[in-house]
Amino acid sequence: MIVTFVGTAGSGKTTLTASFGRYLEENGYSVSYVNLDTGVKRLPYEPDVDVRQDVTAWDIMEEGYGPNGAIVESYDRLLPRVSNYVSTILEAERGSDYVLLDTPGQMETFLFHEFGVRLMENLPEPLTVYLFSPDILRKPADFCFVRFFGLMIELRLGTTTVPAMSKIDTVERLEDYRRYLDDMEYLNARLKLEPSMQGLLAYRMCSALPELAPPTRVLYISAKTGEGFDDLETLAYEHHCTCGDLT
Amino acid sequence: MIVTFVGTAGSGKTTLTASFGRYLEENGYSVSYVNLDTGVKRLPYEPDVDVRQDVTAWDIMEEGYGPNGAIVESYDRLLPRVSNYVSTILEAERGSDYVLLDTPGQMETFLFHEFGVRLMENLPEPLTVYLFSPDILRKPADFCFVRFFGLMIELRLGTTTVPAMSKIDTVERLEDYRRYLDDMEYLNARLKLEPSMQGLLAYRMCSALPELAPPTRVLYISAKTGEGFDDLETLAYEHHCTCGDLT
Repeated sequence: MIVTFVGTAGSGKTTLTASFGRYLEENGYSVSYVNLDTGVKRLPYEPDVDVRQDVTAWDIMEEGYGPNGAIVESYDRLLPRVSNYVSTILEAERGSDYVLLDTPGQMETFLFHEFGVRLMENLPEPLTVYLFSPDILRKPADFCFVRFFGLMIELRLGTTTVPAMSKIDTVERLEDYRRYLDDMEYLNARLKLEPSMQGLLAYRMCSALPELAPPTRVLYISAKTGEGFDDLETLAYEHHCTCGDLT
Repeated sequence: MIVTFVGTAGSGKTTLTASFGRYLEENGYSVSYVNLDTGVKRLPYEPDVDVRQDVTAWDIMEEGYGPNGAIVESYDRLLPRVSNYVSTILEAERGSDYVLLDTPGQMETFLFHEFGVRLMENLPEPLTVYLFSPDILRKPADFCFVRFFGLMIELRLGTTTVPAMSKIDTVERLEDYRRYLDDMEYLNARLKLEPSMQGLLAYRMCSALPELAPPTRVLYISAKTGEGFDDLETLAYEHHCTCGDLT
């Protein structure tokens, strides 16, 4: 089965790919690792498939591009090879229990570029894990934002998407985060008290969420301590068997 | 008044900042230009405020960072100076009719990093223009995605956000795009015909849109030909006077 880690730069995709992979291997599974980031320097895992064999952002920067331009250009150059990557990943899937996909450093490269969208459209039932780090959650509307972002990824990539808070070893009181993320009624009650336009929009959006999609449960993960790895494994297994019901 | 251009790398923010600014100046307005991109090499306008005076992604890459890491690190370093930038931008606003904000190359740097969020929270009623280029629109669900993305930006930054399709000079039949973007009933009718889970999610999300926020009109812009500049000017003016009713 294929598990894809998607998230902004710094959300911990690469570290998690390495440590969750190790966890799976220690539990007797065979794992293939796929690196889709043209701009990463060092990887903490040995990739079985690596886009940098074809294109790197580095080489393109040497042609005179800035870092943003080079990243976009690298996926423009990978695009004609997308069906090769689909085949290679499918082959890896046949040969191993898990294929872990580590996506581009900047999430939008994967969500907005045709390379990411076409790759995901052609893989069979991948589970997407949307990683967000706790430091982007400062006010109630932010919790609504990440809840909705998971849905946006699902809408764009067409894959079942599970939101996962990463780096939980860095937060003092995890239960404060869980209350907002696990209990939509609590979050909505707090949003209702916000007097701003932003609060009102968040309240409207979060209230509508249960009607838009069955409320997926949120994972809480630490790539450092391994907390939450068992939940992620269970969820990947459930997804593989039931294809989609992750409430 | 402050107009902020937000969009993925390659959506045309910088080119539009330059050419819309020139248009405004030709119409007798005074314009200040603000560059918030630490990774841009050359600008087609003369910035009055430029984050690169403090930090560049280049210098950070020379310390050994990869392009993605360098971009994130550059905003980490700018964060302690965010209130200085707010003051400088407010000063620019007092001295000119328009302040145009050209945001980081990668949209998520602005939306997910505290630098962007805190900057926008502290500026008075900026209008955000969410630029997307036509090449990301391939199927009906994609139109729903960009419509919703405008709302996500509004939710995150707390600013009135107008979706704008850029590069309209590159499309053959603009009316095909307009039909999906301007007529939500047409889009919903098409989404209803999509048999996939993705189509169903898009249908549900787009059907809910009118209840979540008054449907903002979409702008159609070419930085090359100047098409749509008058609409953008009118809309910025209306926003400035009425603060928010852009239906």
